[in-house]
Amino acid sequence: MNYNSIKPENIKELQQIVGESWVKFDEETLDKYSHDETEDLKFFPELVVFPRTPEEISQILKFCNQHLIPLTPRGAGTGLSGGALPVNKGILMSMERFNQILEIDERNLQATVEPGVITQVFQEAVKEKGLFYPPDPASKGSCFIGGNIAENSGGPKAVKYGVTKDYVLNLEIVLPNGEIVWTGANVLKNSTGYNLTQLMVGSEGTLGVVTKAVFRLLPFPQNDLLMLVPFYKAEDACEAVAEIFKAGIIPSGMEFMERDALLWGAKHIGDTAFSIPENIQAHLLIEVDGNDNELLYKECEKIYEVLERFDCDEILFAEDATQKDKLWKIRRVVGEAVKSKSIYKEEDTVVPRAELPILLKGVKEIGLQYGFKSVCYGHAGDGNLHVNIIKDTMSDDDWNNKLPFAIREIFNLCVQLKGTVSGEHGIGLVQKSYMDIPFSLQMIDIQKSIKKLFDPNEILNPSKIFE
Amino acid sequence: MNYNSIKPENIKELQQIVGESWVKFDEETLDKYSHDETEDLKFFPELVVFPRTPEEISQILKFCNQHLIPLTPRGAGTGLSGGALPVNKGILMSMERFNQILEIDERNLQATVEPGVITQVFQEAVKEKGLFYPPDPASKGSCFIGGNIAENSGGPKAVKYGVTKDYVLNLEIVLPNGEIVWTGANVLKNSTGYNLTQLMVGSEGTLGVVTKAVFRLLPFPQNDLLMLVPFYKAEDACEAVAEIFKAGIIPSGMEFMERDALLWGAKHIGDTAFSIPENIQAHLLIEVDGNDNELLYKECEKIYEVLERFDCDEILFAEDATQKDKLWKIRRVVGEAVKSKSIYKEEDTVVPRAELPILLKGVKEIGLQYGFKSVCYGHAGDGNLHVNIIKDTMSDDDWNNKLPFAIREIFNLCVQLKGTVSGEHGIGLVQKSYMDIPFSLQMIDIQKSIKKLFDPNEILNPSKIFE
Repeated sequence: MNYNSIKPENIKELQQIVGESWVKFDEETLDKYSHDETEDLKFFPELVVFPRTPEEISQILKFCNQHLIPLTPRGAGTGLSGGALPVNKGILMSMERFNQILEIDERNLQATVEPGVITQVFQEAVKEKGLFYPPDPASKGSCFIGGNIAENSGGPKAVKYGVTKDYVLNLEIVLPNGEIVWTGANVLKNSTGYNLTQLMVGSEGTLGVVTKAVFRLLPFPQNDLLMLVPFYKAEDACEAVAEIFKAGIIPSGMEFMERDALLWGAKHIGDTAFSIPENIQAHLLIEVDGNDNELLYKECEKIYEVLERFDCDEILFAEDATQKDKLWKIRRVVGEAVKSKSIYKEEDTVVPRAELPILLKGVKEIGLQYGFKSVCYGHAGDGNLHVNIIKDTMSDDDWNNKLPFAIREIFNLCVQLKGTVSGEHGIGLVQKSYMDIPFSLQMIDIQKSIKKLFDPNEILNPSKIFE
Repeated sequence: MNYNSIKPENIKELQQIVGESWVKFDEETLDKYSHDETEDLKFFPELVVFPRTPEEISQILKFCNQHLIPLTPRGAGTGLSGGALPVNKGILMSMERFNQILEIDERNLQATVEPGVITQVFQEAVKEKGLFYPPDPASKGSCFIGGNIAENSGGPKAVKYGVTKDYVLNLEIVLPNGEIVWTGANVLKNSTGYNLTQLMVGSEGTLGVVTKAVFRLLPFPQNDLLMLVPFYKAEDACEAVAEIFKAGIIPSGMEFMERDALLWGAKHIGDTAFSIPENIQAHLLIEVDGNDNELLYKECEKIYEVLERFDCDEILFAEDATQKDKLWKIRRVVGEAVKSKSIYKEEDTVVPRAELPILLKGVKEIGLQYGFKSVCYGHAGDGNLHVNIIKDTMSDDDWNNKLPFAIREIFNLCVQLKGTVSGEHGIGLVQKSYMDIPFSLQMIDIQKSIKKLFDPNEILNPSKIFE
């Protein structure tokens, strides 16, 4: 696609749409919006707009179609697959002014939210009313609800409560042609036409711009228990995961961390005294939640019974809220911690959960073969393993030219195990060259045709998901 | 679209694809496949094919494209919106030979199933392994899993466990052009490309033919408690529904039945002694389930506390499995019972659950205005009210010419209340003239374009969903 650059008269037109102060193109702004949290990638937009209403976005999109200027929508910029990078230049559209929780409907256990609301802010607002919005990506303190919708974000609670898509009932969208539509209705069951709501969730801002989202909510579970289980063998930890589910328990958290993941996480939050015995390879962080503490203790007993069949060290049972918070904090910073150590690439592998031991073993073998170290952690209950490949002493040549083959091998293994390439981070820019692994050519063509149907001029978040 | 009729040489070609004995066009067969459970509608196909493999379906679809002959896929024919009616004649394709449960994967709590498996057969097969497949439409004893996928079926358990779409992980589909593809992966989390799995679920056989489905399963809950609550005022029953959720309880069943619904249901199963006091207008059938009986009793106590705030008669607490079965059986036959009494039309209204009292009141007012009686029942926990409009003494002229305006008023009310036109029965043939109520013209156009993208010659289940 041949896009046009932005000309001075275009800037005036944009200023008329959003107001002069909401069009920025100073160096500092352009730099700030040139990257997200994906590796060390940088792509500079030509300017940044900050609209406030769906109508303004509608006008911006019509303008982009008219002038063939690409538009990249952006939430908080915490994405890990480069979905918000303006790779074709043009306009970067920040959704940060869409920051209002419009309604918390306690009668219907629903909420209507603008996409620029921070996930944790939303969670805390509904919690004040005794309600629960479960999706909680590691970046929940800074990421936007809109970004979560774009990437179909998960987080630790997904194992029991599902991912973002499971809470989205209805979306207000600005289509690439500027039309403002609602995709569905505010209901828990809907058999009325095609499910365009779910077509939008996870479409990474390529089919439309979300301007309002209606979520279903749950009653907030009143209690939880948390335990940290050390394993002598990492693969044992993975195997225990499926066994716990088979015992009839659905934990509200089931996180896997390789030795280094936990160690680096603890150091990263400043706990320099934290240590792990030499012979421990991995940990499971297991949470159960509900309204009845007695029942939770019974569930923990059942989990203990399962764990007894595995070779694990002494279980740390979190004593109070402070200890729980600390353990979760460590888990949440693991990504950051690993990344601060070295140049890295993070792969968001996902397989049926009982295949985790095979996946982990495969990743390590591929690492040995290609000469890289990996630190693995993630949402084991969902079979969602984040594989952080560490550059460390690997040569630039190997890193740039050989590593893509290794990643292909990892993804091939995922697909052989009936899994796929991304569990919760999305395809965006950095994974799109691997889309031929999970999908047949026909399936890629259908997806591209859907993109073309919504956005014939390819002005909305171009060069994402598909090659 | 100008379709061609089937010629003798076409029949030969079809016989070569599926085998001679699997192409039928005798009068009895054509009659049997000319109707589903939607009112008294009949549309005769020209012939019926019974394929056994995705490859055969692929060839049939290529044949249909080549000769411009319409193809209507059909499950068990229990649909309530006419989705399986061959309104353009042509070929009716029965999926009944796709009747194998291919795998129950106890390690991953998943199952792979062919679309012609009866829902209850599937439920019982997984239950034998201690597993749970929750969607349970009233017709579960005869309907097919494939039909449930096509209509995104729900049933009483949906209130706690969600509908069919919430269990479908991956689908093998034959596309209208004959290509056989998988839509996704067998994983609980997936952020890899557009969600074509969810685009297929609920698309009523208009975008592709499902030939295999991978479902997630849950551990089977070991206990449940059931109570039947009589209310002096039907609107009070509706109001109590939202209050129970607000108290932090998520029941596994929360069914509403107007007086006549329950009475006729009981009579229908042969319980002629069943009676309801004169002053009772409606009942709620409330179930809680889980693994801990003590906790269930606590939940029931909480429900009692909520109910005390409403004007209800003595609560019947089901004493044993037999009584539970009987109550559920009555609930399940209500549809049939109501329909055996009179010519009827059933509307599958759905609203946010707290709006139920307004919907019910509105339906009765519209009934008074247009001169019809209605019997209402349904999944109150989901806000899904089945409105059965009874012809009774209404004139044929009013029934045919005035009633559609009344139905429009009912649906307008649903949409005003942020609900929609179908919660679980689908649009099919009989609701398509109402699609302009929940959707803007743009949204209908997008859906039609998606249909056109998948099926440019409109050979697959034509004349459904859209006018």
